[in-house]
Amino acid sequence: MPELRENLATKRWVIIATERAKRPEEFVKKKEIIVHPAYDPKCPFCEGNEAVSKEEIIGYRREGTKPGEKGWYLRVIPNKFPALVPSTSPRVEVKRSKSGIYLCMDGVGKHELVIENAAHNKTIATMNTEEVERIIRAYHERYLALDWDPHYKLVIIFRNQGGLAGASQVHPHSQIVATAIVPHHIRHAFYEAQRYFDELGRCVFCDMIKNELHEKERIILKNEKFIAFMPYAALVPYETWILPLQHVTSFADLHEEDISPLAQILRDILSKFYYSLNNPDYNYCIRSVPHYSACEPYYHWYIQILPRITTVAGFEIGSGMSINITLPEETAKFLREFEVK
Amino acid sequence: MPELRENLATKRWVIIATERAKRPEEFVKKKEIIVHPAYDPKCPFCEGNEAVSKEEIIGYRREGTKPGEKGWYLRVIPNKFPALVPSTSPRVEVKRSKSGIYLCMDGVGKHELVIENAAHNKTIATMNTEEVERIIRAYHERYLALDWDPHYKLVIIFRNQGGLAGASQVHPHSQIVATAIVPHHIRHAFYEAQRYFDELGRCVFCDMIKNELHEKERIILKNEKFIAFMPYAALVPYETWILPLQHVTSFADLHEEDISPLAQILRDILSKFYYSLNNPDYNYCIRSVPHYSACEPYYHWYIQILPRITTVAGFEIGSGMSINITLPEETAKFLREFEVK
Repeated sequence: MPELRENLATKRWVIIATERAKRPEEFVKKKEIIVHPAYDPKCPFCEGNEAVSKEEIIGYRREGTKPGEKGWYLRVIPNKFPALVPSTSPRVEVKRSKSGIYLCMDGVGKHELVIENAAHNKTIATMNTEEVERIIRAYHERYLALDWDPHYKLVIIFRNQGGLAGASQVHPHSQIVATAIVPHHIRHAFYEAQRYFDELGRCVFCDMIKNELHEKERIILKNEKFIAFMPYAALVPYETWILPLQHVTSFADLHEEDISPLAQILRDILSKFYYSLNNPDYNYCIRSVPHYSACEPYYHWYIQILPRITTVAGFEIGSGMSINITLPEETAKFLREFEVK
Repeated sequence: MPELRENLATKRWVIIATERAKRPEEFVKKKEIIVHPAYDPKCPFCEGNEAVSKEEIIGYRREGTKPGEKGWYLRVIPNKFPALVPSTSPRVEVKRSKSGIYLCMDGVGKHELVIENAAHNKTIATMNTEEVERIIRAYHERYLALDWDPHYKLVIIFRNQGGLAGASQVHPHSQIVATAIVPHHIRHAFYEAQRYFDELGRCVFCDMIKNELHEKERIILKNEKFIAFMPYAALVPYETWILPLQHVTSFADLHEEDISPLAQILRDILSKFYYSLNNPDYNYCIRSVPHYSACEPYYHWYIQILPRITTVAGFEIGSGMSINITLPEETAKFLREFEVK
């Protein structure tokens, strides 16, 4: 009999389809990993090709080098094909207007790219801790800047790894989008966390962490600051959440001493994916709150990693429920026990 | 400047990213259409291979032929790898239980396959009206049976066309799933329609139809009973909705005289996709209400067709908003004017 499981925080039910269940190792990608060169003359993000994207929002660079030139470790640049663009008006409010009976508004926002490394052929899984720390630092630096800007309501940091995950460039990069609205879908997640808090007086994510620490079987890794586990109602095989062990509402409140442990756990999880499943495609995003909610007690920021090793089909679209053909306890055990050499 | 548009019924905002905009014809699939044989000895759904799936829930057959044997036009059979399975208990309620702090329940439901045609190499786009009418008739027949069964709360009919849409079999088929719960995501869509009705006293879908009939530019096809248009805030390029012109809450209330016009408009839309875009992958699902809500005035059943020609990536996951790189008005015009020869 398949089992339905509810995610306590999001209230989404997931079908754990044991009748179709697969073993954790059945998800190892068949294709060989393509070995890319460290430099690709055609890549717009490679060191030496800065002419394609001169403007530099952040540059972590070797001393004596100049923005828009060689000599960087990490750059944040504007996206050349932005999904949203900054307002030209000094007004903070973005006016809604009517088109027939429908609502529309200007696509105000910011869309930035974090070029994570000068080398074309690295990925977080194969970087050293220092390199990943730089990425976390850049995320946080840009998060703070955009979060404080009253034009924006939500800052979304995400990474697309591989073609199935929507990446069009091989060069290691993440994206940051600031939106002028809180989308519906995100608002519902806040409501659910708020209802839990109003009822029980506790953060639902803190309760989940406590439960996972007690049950142990879905934990993959833990360090002094962070925990990585597979949610009880994982949406897809190998879905993984990374959360601060202590209650922190907003990603804005990441401290200096959190950067290294966060970089380590993120790199270690992605390395386990990379070496055990043969470089699977994935998306991750940092889920946090709008600036004005940063002091609310009910939410808890986290990183949600969603490997793209199964296909979303009509059932998922029609029902909004997903079918997971693995047991989170089994995939968690598989990854927990897998040692990256 | 990109534009944000809100879907009046679902309240989802969509980014219409004009900066990245593509012309309607840029979505024509590059790959040549694979010509499959009319019979594949290895296909479990082909006529002659009934031994693989003897049990027959419905069989539209030539006179004198027997269930589980050759001679059928359409069969509905149980899915061999069901996502949900019927309860063995006579109780209608499915008990929730606790696993630690989480909720779980038995995966009770029904999962059926509609083998739409005996020929391996047909698809709705290439069938004649009579063949498509049979599919609609089977959908409706099974919908009624499952909708009346008190064990189930929601009946979801959907179709996965092509690998990108999650289809694992080439043979033309649809799926029907009955669930013992109303998923969260579906409930929210009902709430939104209900709020609109409570506020304005009208069905939001009827208002959308009226608006589209007035504005005309997003309509693709219309007949005496149904309309097909692209939603103002289409989630993806070429998203299309088919709705009954008159207010009907539940798909259960499809009448005999609706079958032929529905079959025609569905086939004609899918033919336009097939011939103009070179057989794109797609999912569609029929959105309807639970049995107990069939008399509610606020909802309006419809078919949502989502072509799978772009990839959902981290931004969509992180924000729940989608980025559509086409203007619905342009893609609607392109399809409206495209003539299937």
